[in-house]
Amino acid sequence: MNGNNLPDRTAIEAAAARVGDRVRTTPVLRLGLRPFNLAGELVLKLECLQHTGSFKPRGAFNRVLSAGRVPDAGLIAASGGNHGAAVAYVALELGLPAEIFVPSIVVPSKLDRIRQYGADVRIGGDRYADALAASERRARDTGALAVHAYDDADVIAGQGGVAREFEAQAGTLDTVLVAVGGGGLVAGIAAWYAGRTRVVAVEPRTSRALDAALAAGEPVDVDVAGIAADSLGARRAGERAFAIARDTGVTSVLVDDENIRVAQRMLWKHTRVFAEPGGATALAAILSRAYTPQPGERVGVVVCGANGDPTVLA
Amino acid sequence: MNGNNLPDRTAIEAAAARVGDRVRTTPVLRLGLRPFNLAGELVLKLECLQHTGSFKPRGAFNRVLSAGRVPDAGLIAASGGNHGAAVAYVALELGLPAEIFVPSIVVPSKLDRIRQYGADVRIGGDRYADALAASERRARDTGALAVHAYDDADVIAGQGGVAREFEAQAGTLDTVLVAVGGGGLVAGIAAWYAGRTRVVAVEPRTSRALDAALAAGEPVDVDVAGIAADSLGARRAGERAFAIARDTGVTSVLVDDENIRVAQRMLWKHTRVFAEPGGATALAAILSRAYTPQPGERVGVVVCGANGDPTVLA
Ligand SMILES: Cc1ncc(COP(=O)(O)O)c(C=O)c1O
Ligand SMILES: Cc1ncc(COP(=O)(O)O)c(C=O)c1O
Repeated sequence: MNGNNLPDRTAIEAAAARVGDRVRTTPVLRLGLRPFNLAGELVLKLECLQHTGSFKPRGAFNRVLSAGRVPDAGLIAASGGNHGAAVAYVALELGLPAEIFVPSIVVPSKLDRIRQYGADVRIGGDRYADALAASERRARDTGALAVHAYDDADVIAGQGGVAREFEAQAGTLDTVLVAVGGGGLVAGIAAWYAGRTRVVAVEPRTSRALDAALAAGEPVDVDVAGIAADSLGARRAGERAFAIARDTGVTSVLVDDENIRVAQRMLWKHTRVFAEPGGATALAAILSRAYTPQPGERVGVVVCGANGDPTVLA
Repeated sequence: MNGNNLPDRTAIEAAAARVGDRVRTTPVLRLGLRPFNLAGELVLKLECLQHTGSFKPRGAFNRVLSAGRVPDAGLIAASGGNHGAAVAYVALELGLPAEIFVPSIVVPSKLDRIRQYGADVRIGGDRYADALAASERRARDTGALAVHAYDDADVIAGQGGVAREFEAQAGTLDTVLVAVGGGGLVAGIAAWYAGRTRVVAVEPRTSRALDAALAAGEPVDVDVAGIAADSLGARRAGERAFAIARDTGVTSVLVDDENIRVAQRMLWKHTRVFAEPGGATALAAILSRAYTPQPGERVGVVVCGANGDPTVLA
């Protein structure tokens, strides 16, 4: 951690050592940009193959293992679904109880995961922000350890492990594209690269919390809608994520739902990798030319989640 | 090649050099055997992420690139679908025409692939063996270069590249489980390991061409049916595949369709990797205890294809 309690490379190394092989080293796949009619290299980080189907256990494990003693009430979290599944998984692995608040827009595959891992699930309102408020009220009653989905230094340090692995596997990339909800993942990745590689934050036009924060100079509320809202639908970027993004020079681009759907289908067609909408959002930036790599550029794309409905591919 | 014109390690190295980066180095994923209530290590070779959605381009590229000049009529092949897609892809990449004969049981995702790559498709009978006979008649008329799906030394040498990569990525494995149709894949893998790693051939009980050949001491006809028949439904093991399997001590196990379906679902649940039935058949051997690893055993499983219907997961 640096003076502002923002995670840095050292904190990310420490998190990776702490979490160890409780998370998978997810594979990378080198593709080339030819399917996109571009010259250059495209390397996918298949974080969708992580335990629970998203990158989220990285941060959740680090938060819980850093916390010292966990209260008898166990863990509590609010989540569009993937973070909840990760906290439920962490609880199962560590032998703790867990209570997860989800909004009513949670998709079946995420709800199933949370239940499979044995956590108690509560529906708290219609959007992630409502579920978060409900979980905070409940945590005051039970004393459970709250695991925030993104605005937490330990969570961000855990997510940074994605970039730590990616660099080791793919070498130096010119650019890494990352989808953003509340910003925990992009912050961890930007903190790892610390300006050595360009980090581009990709959000749906209909849930642009980080884009709005970077424009306003501070996190501000945005409306949230669209096909990736169940994973990227944070109403407001995290304070810490915003600070890291600003300080490391993260740039922001926006994509449409239609681009996201086409990216899901293209990924499936060319690689047989399945990504949920939030997991295909970073790739959608290339497809839609929201981000256009230069000839010869080495571009990394984090495919960050796969808890969606594969029948959309049919 | 050795004296019997059977591919060996040298031929596999030569094939890999010849084919180069026209095929992808597919990633591996380390899993552990805990989901199967077994102690030991499980490493998946994700050959389902290969170009065209199966390992088949490895052999097809090596065959065509080894052939010297290709006739004006281009390439011809018979296939349950995946080999046809691979030959169509090779033709597209090398700028050649291709004609592909498929049986009526071909599944839509395979047919779509062959068409997408621009090959001419013909339905030749109800089973792979019928399509093969039709393609052979046609090849005599057109003079096109026939690319056999499995009973060809260059095809086998190309498929051996799966094991060459797998060993480099996963280190020494005690055992590798491989699905078998006509036996090209298992033969390439067994030729690479040449007894240093146990190779177990896995077939559906309802299409056991290699199992029957090993029992009879020579390739014999079997009936073919079941959910993996569109990829594993060869009526008779290849002569070369049989000889290599026999000479290298490949053992054979059988699984039921139900095991295959559960293996598809388990793979999806634990890794979000999608495999078609033939692609999940090797894993089904562990699940069904047709093959039971010893405690601490390091087991590799080749996940060899993903051209199926993902809606079966819902
Ligand atoms: C698949 C997927 N991608 C990206 C994100 C965004 O993560 P963050 O909130 O850390 O920006 C999430 C969050 O749930 C997610 O589930
Ligand atoms: C997915 C898949 N797995 C395995 C096989 C079997 O290959 P072989 O005929 O070389 O045994 C095939 C053949 O089409 C296949 O498509």
